[in-house]
Amino acid sequence: MFSNALIKEFKAIVGKQNVLQKEADRQAYAYDAAVLDPVVPAMAVCPTTSEELGKVVRLCNENGIPLTPRGSGTNLSGGTIPEKKGIVLLTNALNKIIEINAQDLYAVIQPGVVTAQFAAEVARHGLFYPPDPGSMAVSTLGGNVAENAGGLRGLKYGVTKDYVMGVDFFDVTGELVKSGSRTVKCVTGLNLSALQVASEGILGVFNEIVLKLVPPPAANKAMMAVFDDIDKASETVAAIIAAHIVPCTLEILDNSTIKYVEDYTRAGMPVTAQAILLIEVDGHPAQVAEEAEKVVSICKTAGAVDVQAARDEAERNKLWEARRAALPALARARPTTVLEDATVPRSQIPAMIRAINEIAKKHRLEVGTFGHAGDGNLHPTILCDKRDTREFERVEQAVDEIFDVALSLKGTLSGEHGIGLAKAKWLEKETSAATIAYARALKTAVDPKGILNPGKIIGG
Amino acid sequence: MFSNALIKEFKAIVGKQNVLQKEADRQAYAYDAAVLDPVVPAMAVCPTTSEELGKVVRLCNENGIPLTPRGSGTNLSGGTIPEKKGIVLLTNALNKIIEINAQDLYAVIQPGVVTAQFAAEVARHGLFYPPDPGSMAVSTLGGNVAENAGGLRGLKYGVTKDYVMGVDFFDVTGELVKSGSRTVKCVTGLNLSALQVASEGILGVFNEIVLKLVPPPAANKAMMAVFDDIDKASETVAAIIAAHIVPCTLEILDNSTIKYVEDYTRAGMPVTAQAILLIEVDGHPAQVAEEAEKVVSICKTAGAVDVQAARDEAERNKLWEARRAALPALARARPTTVLEDATVPRSQIPAMIRAINEIAKKHRLEVGTFGHAGDGNLHPTILCDKRDTREFERVEQAVDEIFDVALSLKGTLSGEHGIGLAKAKWLEKETSAATIAYARALKTAVDPKGILNPGKIIGG
Repeated sequence: MFSNALIKEFKAIVGKQNVLQKEADRQAYAYDAAVLDPVVPAMAVCPTTSEELGKVVRLCNENGIPLTPRGSGTNLSGGTIPEKKGIVLLTNALNKIIEINAQDLYAVIQPGVVTAQFAAEVARHGLFYPPDPGSMAVSTLGGNVAENAGGLRGLKYGVTKDYVMGVDFFDVTGELVKSGSRTVKCVTGLNLSALQVASEGILGVFNEIVLKLVPPPAANKAMMAVFDDIDKASETVAAIIAAHIVPCTLEILDNSTIKYVEDYTRAGMPVTAQAILLIEVDGHPAQVAEEAEKVVSICKTAGAVDVQAARDEAERNKLWEARRAALPALARARPTTVLEDATVPRSQIPAMIRAINEIAKKHRLEVGTFGHAGDGNLHPTILCDKRDTREFERVEQAVDEIFDVALSLKGTLSGEHGIGLAKAKWLEKETSAATIAYARALKTAVDPKGILNPGKIIGG
Repeated sequence: MFSNALIKEFKAIVGKQNVLQKEADRQAYAYDAAVLDPVVPAMAVCPTTSEELGKVVRLCNENGIPLTPRGSGTNLSGGTIPEKKGIVLLTNALNKIIEINAQDLYAVIQPGVVTAQFAAEVARHGLFYPPDPGSMAVSTLGGNVAENAGGLRGLKYGVTKDYVMGVDFFDVTGELVKSGSRTVKCVTGLNLSALQVASEGILGVFNEIVLKLVPPPAANKAMMAVFDDIDKASETVAAIIAAHIVPCTLEILDNSTIKYVEDYTRAGMPVTAQAILLIEVDGHPAQVAEEAEKVVSICKTAGAVDVQAARDEAERNKLWEARRAALPALARARPTTVLEDATVPRSQIPAMIRAINEIAKKHRLEVGTFGHAGDGNLHPTILCDKRDTREFERVEQAVDEIFDVALSLKGTLSGEHGIGLAKAKWLEKETSAATIAYARALKTAVDPKGILNPGKIIGG
């Protein structure tokens, strides 16, 4: 597709072995974790240094070649689906942890560092990097920043954006833009780092990222509360927050999810329960003890039929493994798993869950709902088969209606999965035509040829 | 300066009484808290509703009239110095607290709400809004967001940007752009809210802001540690952080500042001390007790000659009043007070303080240094007389050198005071030509006529 001369230029920058043109390679980068049709790119390029990265970007811009940066491709919104005539720009070889500064509580990393490996390395320095997206075992930090990845600890610790102190990135011409700082406070210039977060690669290509670290909590306590009525479970969530307890994690699983998880893990989940809350508090040992006691009491008052606290690390791990099994367990049930991300102010969780179940019933769909109840971020997961076009039409109608309800409850389309290609068409409903025009004006200003991950978020 | 027809149009939008054309009014809005020459605007306009605000912006754009949004004008970088042929857009009448949602831990406000009044109202709802810039008694939240205001609690609680969940703003044509959400997590569209934070009014005019609230800490403990050597004080800061204690406030005052504060307040400060640290820990009572004990022990080990803990709220207030008196006390000494904002990674505080003192000596200037040692944000304050041109040249050289040292220590030009007009010329030194070009491209894209607070941050 590209001229031999052009391919030679790519090879001159990154080396022959890092220009991937084989059919199998191209196929491998044609899709991500979203339920969307694959698009096979012209080739994939894998720079191994900052310098090479900048040069690849410049070469693409000079030749009008669309580029899609990609870490591990775990995003759920099509953020890394490439263009047919474009390249996939792999960041996986840019995987150095450049600095972990325990005195000043920050780290500097390249975008291809794997999240879990980074978190482990930070822990070895006696510190804590809280963001824990579901895919952290394989996801890259560059991808986390590009998608503003969330996770289970969002309620207390926030999401990726809350840990980004600075981003140095290549503009479309391959020049280095510097934003943010290694300091806690920085107001030098426009907040370009924050604009890069959640920008899904449409505004620049990350070179180095400065991430905030925090001291780890001294203690934690995980609990499971079992309910025979999902309303009682969701009202418990509101009662915990009203008591001024901010758990680090506060998750909900509905009956359908519980059954699939038990079938998958045989972990001994109560399959007749209508809902389970998994709750963890952390912090100073005295605070943890006190808050755990209060949580148990709130759960019981709200009508939990059973409340169990993990007695040791093994029991705690078992609870969280069950939670992390929710998506893979549901995904086994049918050929297609449409994982949604509707998010509402947490007090609206009871209303949102009721609405999801009504919509599922109306469209004769099986939906398992689980998610981060504490921050209002639910993952209604529709189990279906995309090849059954009539069923899939009903799925699309259901998704539409789920979004409508979320917005009517003052919520948002996407809590943590991004807009990508999958949700771009709904964006105006939540914002306004002027909002999209404003975003498009910014995009066009910094990428006049439109080569940076085209089509994501704002279309075009 | 404006035609009668145009003035009539402004009056038709906001009412006659809200178009301020008198000389005294115009003079009142010619300056802010920065040491810069005043610029008298053509007039000031004071909309009282969102609708009026949007219409004023549109009218300005249609007629190419520069507009400078202004709350209380307390910023220290010239961010609200208007254009001679422009208007000042007063936000003070847009001062409604639209919603405080205790269940979902957020508030929705208009930009003209005064920070301290908002914090007090939030406290009445049993919640906590942590950002506490020095000027909070009069500053507006719109101004805080535009400048990304910091304060004394930055170390543990972050700064204004960490509390902005959403910003609805008027684009230059007067259309409403919506960004962010009332939910903890939101990745719907580009993060335009975060871009508005610290943008000093050059990218849009705020309409409504959604702010995050948190439960208040259950207990706190304030302490004062006295040192006969400033190096020991700054090393104590590093030792506290290394012990994984994150105080909510960790302030330093040098000898010069202590003397001026004592002269001003007669609070009984130890005037022979070379440095004082003011430290407050907060959180669960057991944690506070334990951390306070550790802090006392760390201070003593590091060589503090005296450590006192506030025994009650009155003693605690006395400590913080002394700290808050630092700037007014220094400002009494000489006609001009050049308050700087150099910020370094906290481990570099000893080096930064030594450098400031050397620079002061070299240029024969009196400098009092105080600030947020815990987050590396120092306020070296040069006491001088701007009318003494030879002295002021030395001041400018000293400021240059202070910035050079901060950057060489991997710090930043401005921790919390903004760039405005005052520091625009240093911006490229910290970032790069490409960074400024990128920011200018964004600005031009959303404000083609350049009417939104011209000249701030990126010049032009």
